[in-house]
Amino acid sequence: MDPQIGIIGLGTMGANLARNAARNGAKVVVYNRSAEKTDEFMSQYGKEGMIEGYKSYKELVQVLTPPRPILIMVKAGEAVDSVIDELREHLSPGDILIDGGNSNFEDTQRRYDNLKKSGLKFIGMGVSGGEEGALNGPSMMAGGDNDAYDEVDELLNRMAADDGVGGKCVSLLGPGGAGHFVKMTHNGIEYGVMQLIAESFDLLKRIGGFDNDQLAETFEAWRDSDELSSYLLEITAEIFGSKSDVLDAIKDQAGQKGTGKWTTSAALHYGVAIPTINASVDARIISGSESERKSGKNFPVSLDEQDPVPPPMKFRSIVRHAYELSMLLTYMQGILLIKKANEDEKWGIDMGEVVRIWRGGCIIRSSVLGRLQNAFGKDEGKVKAGKQAIMERFQGDRQMDFRRTLVFASSRGIPTPAMSASLNYWDALRSETLPQNLIQAQRDFFGNHGFERVDKEGEYHIDS
Amino acid sequence: MDPQIGIIGLGTMGANLARNAARNGAKVVVYNRSAEKTDEFMSQYGKEGMIEGYKSYKELVQVLTPPRPILIMVKAGEAVDSVIDELREHLSPGDILIDGGNSNFEDTQRRYDNLKKSGLKFIGMGVSGGEEGALNGPSMMAGGDNDAYDEVDELLNRMAADDGVGGKCVSLLGPGGAGHFVKMTHNGIEYGVMQLIAESFDLLKRIGGFDNDQLAETFEAWRDSDELSSYLLEITAEIFGSKSDVLDAIKDQAGQKGTGKWTTSAALHYGVAIPTINASVDARIISGSESERKSGKNFPVSLDEQDPVPPPMKFRSIVRHAYELSMLLTYMQGILLIKKANEDEKWGIDMGEVVRIWRGGCIIRSSVLGRLQNAFGKDEGKVKAGKQAIMERFQGDRQMDFRRTLVFASSRGIPTPAMSASLNYWDALRSETLPQNLIQAQRDFFGNHGFERVDKEGEYHIDS
Repeated sequence: MDPQIGIIGLGTMGANLARNAARNGAKVVVYNRSAEKTDEFMSQYGKEGMIEGYKSYKELVQVLTPPRPILIMVKAGEAVDSVIDELREHLSPGDILIDGGNSNFEDTQRRYDNLKKSGLKFIGMGVSGGEEGALNGPSMMAGGDNDAYDEVDELLNRMAADDGVGGKCVSLLGPGGAGHFVKMTHNGIEYGVMQLIAESFDLLKRIGGFDNDQLAETFEAWRDSDELSSYLLEITAEIFGSKSDVLDAIKDQAGQKGTGKWTTSAALHYGVAIPTINASVDARIISGSESERKSGKNFPVSLDEQDPVPPPMKFRSIVRHAYELSMLLTYMQGILLIKKANEDEKWGIDMGEVVRIWRGGCIIRSSVLGRLQNAFGKDEGKVKAGKQAIMERFQGDRQMDFRRTLVFASSRGIPTPAMSASLNYWDALRSETLPQNLIQAQRDFFGNHGFERVDKEGEYHIDS
Repeated sequence: MDPQIGIIGLGTMGANLARNAARNGAKVVVYNRSAEKTDEFMSQYGKEGMIEGYKSYKELVQVLTPPRPILIMVKAGEAVDSVIDELREHLSPGDILIDGGNSNFEDTQRRYDNLKKSGLKFIGMGVSGGEEGALNGPSMMAGGDNDAYDEVDELLNRMAADDGVGGKCVSLLGPGGAGHFVKMTHNGIEYGVMQLIAESFDLLKRIGGFDNDQLAETFEAWRDSDELSSYLLEITAEIFGSKSDVLDAIKDQAGQKGTGKWTTSAALHYGVAIPTINASVDARIISGSESERKSGKNFPVSLDEQDPVPPPMKFRSIVRHAYELSMLLTYMQGILLIKKANEDEKWGIDMGEVVRIWRGGCIIRSSVLGRLQNAFGKDEGKVKAGKQAIMERFQGDRQMDFRRTLVFASSRGIPTPAMSASLNYWDALRSETLPQNLIQAQRDFFGNHGFERVDKEGEYHIDS
């Protein structure tokens, strides 16, 4: 039997996933709340494969063979709950609902638990790759039960991007909310890397005096390098290459849809430090703080420009190393967040598998993921080699350049919140001791909170 | 009639507030869940004033005259709800419950709304000052209704710390959760300032080579200065002065009870950037990340120690300016958070009043609050002068020293996450343009999110 799938919601992502499924030989039945959109979709793409459009849930469900896999592609939040509510009366036990939106992992866990009670299966699946990925091969991070996933495994594998090493970028990572947790963290990393690219751009422009052509050339060179090559650098090079007129006219206020903030909240909940990602979320908030920025423009400036700016290619190489190391630390923060949540929630996620399915299709795909996959995978020999390979990138001049970049930024007044947060994170982890003993002493002093000592077990107080 | 108050919960804070109220002429009736604690309290302090101890809510309520003010001093969270549940059957409409714990402002709002339905009054009141403040004069940030507050206004005024300018450190700031929101943000600022002091200590010790005696002398000098004088510097000087042996033995892992994390979450919710406070919360998390710190100790180090370390007194003065300016920015971030929440929630908070009641009694009391009170108050002449006075602190060599401190930290590998976040915040607000136009271009490129332009109205896309 050909694979089959129902798709609810024909926005850009839903429509492209429907076409992707159809091209891959599936019977695809689609539905959209406003029927015009269904008609429009059918007339434009209906001939691309075995696609059928319906105007009621009842019809859509009837033409699928149980157990029916139905992919919901609507706006995260209440819309997902209403679709589920209206749809469930038409379903039979064993049918599989898949939420492919950017849902909060806690909502996904709740829906999974609720639907389980009535014998329905639920998969929360983060889909990354944007419009283009949805059409030609996304990365899909699924959470749910094995028996449900088995029903869609073949089709999802056909649809997903290649991982570049013989596999496909889709996997059942764990139960319930696990898939959406991984997707949320993927987006947190995306915030971080985008901010780091933006800071590199700002440094090169405002300190190095680079114009758009030089910036295009820089990002092309970085994109083409083994160490940095990534989708985000690809599109950055393209933006500076052919869209620089538009770029210059875009308001410097970044929007956000919430997954970055969720990542920060989740990291607080699980007690994991992701300072680069937090700084990136804050940088977007600051960029949009109109009244504060307006008064900020009156602030006095006193720079300490002691070091002369190196020649362009030298300066570019210095900033490049700061970008590379900060970027590696951003991925590591995200991976450590998933690792800790996985331990606390007992999801049983294979961390190497998480990194593997990020290697193709998704927005954060990058050459660094190969090394990270080894470092966080299960093969002990590869773990060592992977960690070693990452560690080596931090050695000698590259680390010095990371420091030099921040010296230039601090002394010349260029904000580099994410790069600074990365270096501070690295230096804190490296430090034999941290000054938090003072904070513990202060907390006990005014609040009688108690502290531990290095020389003996137990809880102590400053006056005892 | 003498003022009266019931107090439930005789932990350190509850017991000290009870003694404070009694000393100030109130009839105080106390209750504790474990009756032994009530007996113990009565035998130790019962003679200090008109204090009566009871072993049931019924008795406690009976000896108070309606409308009865009852202060709840139990652990924030479920314990507050259970006390309210058990207590309410004994109360009459018009009675006033005051939650003096570190409750989440959303819980406070919920309790306020619920109790209102049964004609009971509820005040959520943050109390700062630690044990010593509770006994001798705390700062109290109340949220609730005017008629409820009027009943306790006189007693609270007697109990509160002096603000140093003729008033007392207590105020009804707004309805419902407003008081606990202000207290939460107060704690966020406290996290920030404590981290900045810890970073100053680390810089002076690890770069400047300061020993504990030199550190004691430094913090004493800072404490005694007009610009920096604060409670947190007082206790820091005392710790280095007489407790430095203990300090050296304290584990460098800082704990936290949640209000810092809440502040970060609230700032995300209201869309306000508080990067110094966030970095301080993260610094505590990092300090406690044992396994990451353990592997971090293997990381390679390459420093870029180009600038020679200045002589001790010069270096101390450089770090002092970094501390001062970062500290000012921390207070500003907290104040801007309250300002935005106040606008969104329409609490009607007088920002000058918030700053005024922080001037005495509380953990973040400091000489800088005078200038901040003017800058954020309602008197237009003073606003200008206050802003000008703050702005002046950022000028010339002091700003250069701020930058120089971070140059030393980056090049010599000392983590200064909160100071770095502060400078980056300042430089971002100051910048004529930010590189977020690139982030908007990228978001549109892969996600079709759209962006605004500087040169015309409307929403645009990169390909149009």
